[in-house]
Amino acid sequence: MPGNAPKNKLDSTAALGAEIVKVGPGSEERRRRAEELAAQHGYAIVPPYNDEHIIAGQGTTGLEILEQLPEVETVLAPVGGGGLISGIATALKLSKPSVKIIGVEPELAADAQASLRSGHLVSFEAEQVTRTLADGLRTQSIGEINFEHIRAHVDDIITVKEGEIEGAMRTLGEDTKTVAEPSGAVAMAGFLFHANEIPRSRFNAAIVSGGNIDPEMLAKLRA
Amino acid sequence: MPGNAPKNKLDSTAALGAEIVKVGPGSEERRRRAEELAAQHGYAIVPPYNDEHIIAGQGTTGLEILEQLPEVETVLAPVGGGGLISGIATALKLSKPSVKIIGVEPELAADAQASLRSGHLVSFEAEQVTRTLADGLRTQSIGEINFEHIRAHVDDIITVKEGEIEGAMRTLGEDTKTVAEPSGAVAMAGFLFHANEIPRSRFNAAIVSGGNIDPEMLAKLRA
Repeated sequence: MPGNAPKNKLDSTAALGAEIVKVGPGSEERRRRAEELAAQHGYAIVPPYNDEHIIAGQGTTGLEILEQLPEVETVLAPVGGGGLISGIATALKLSKPSVKIIGVEPELAADAQASLRSGHLVSFEAEQVTRTLADGLRTQSIGEINFEHIRAHVDDIITVKEGEIEGAMRTLGEDTKTVAEPSGAVAMAGFLFHANEIPRSRFNAAIVSGGNIDPEMLAKLRA
Repeated sequence: MPGNAPKNKLDSTAALGAEIVKVGPGSEERRRRAEELAAQHGYAIVPPYNDEHIIAGQGTTGLEILEQLPEVETVLAPVGGGGLISGIATALKLSKPSVKIIGVEPELAADAQASLRSGHLVSFEAEQVTRTLADGLRTQSIGEINFEHIRAHVDDIITVKEGEIEGAMRTLGEDTKTVAEPSGAVAMAGFLFHANEIPRSRFNAAIVSGGNIDPEMLAKLRA
């Protein structure tokens, strides 16, 4: 796990009986260390996003949205490594091509937006992306397989400010009674604070994914 | 509204455009003042619990539990004035008589337990019931119509301590990502901390009702 993961994620993982190997903030170092350990012990690696099976699995979220809200017109999804949005966008666009898919990223880790807009994979420095509260979205770049899916099926990627992420966490807690971690509240922040950058539609879905919040952070959200 | 209602409930009500009339903690004074205002202005009174239509409406919660978990064996419900549990117990027992219905009350406001066990309506002093954090359950006694429903259909009423209510709020937030106010977490507290007083069964439901929590209170729940 990244050494700078929030304490509650480290603690919960340890509580499940895991031995935690901490690595620096770089994705590349993390991948290499995982491969070493896998080779050494015969472990199976479950890749976080740059993998067709992972993408297919996350696509079921898109199918569930369609099942629960067939009228859906616009879907907002968080973007870290790009696994979730790759799956969702592909599942939705192939099922109902009129749906607009908007990715949402922290402004401090907007590598996916830069990639989509420039047409080639853009990487950010680890030191840069670790500034965002949204620890689940601190990837330095989206995966190559993800990039292909995003280019094919995502309409736009917008960014949100740190204070907007906190505002979305507060709204989710107060109005929908849902505990979301910063990474989990990013799509909602896009919906709440960037209405002018997303299609005007009546039936919208914003994906809230991740609720592992440090109690210290909850406390800081006091109005 | 009771003058000692949490600030966030007063604020949210005002934000909806209401003119708030604050009354003392006594239920009787509150009822009288509401009737005065209704007579004066031609308002309709929506009674909080001692009313057959309210009970019937809340019974739909019981029907929804049966729909979503037909195997259900035990249902825990919070008890304040007794409206919710009257409806749920009646709906469930008439649909599936084998279901056990357990009411859960704060130990500091255990008038319903005293009533059920003694066989007659027991009233607590306002000063006594206002000690609990669970402001939604600070009723001094259950209603007469509610008492009849509870006697007929509720198997037992158990009580929980204030620290157990806080523990249940924490568990609901951390493990189920659900924001519950103290009154809303009482049934879960019964399930978590009083397993020996409830039937041993495999399919249980605890009703979480109420999520209007003061940010100050959330902050106090820090582990």
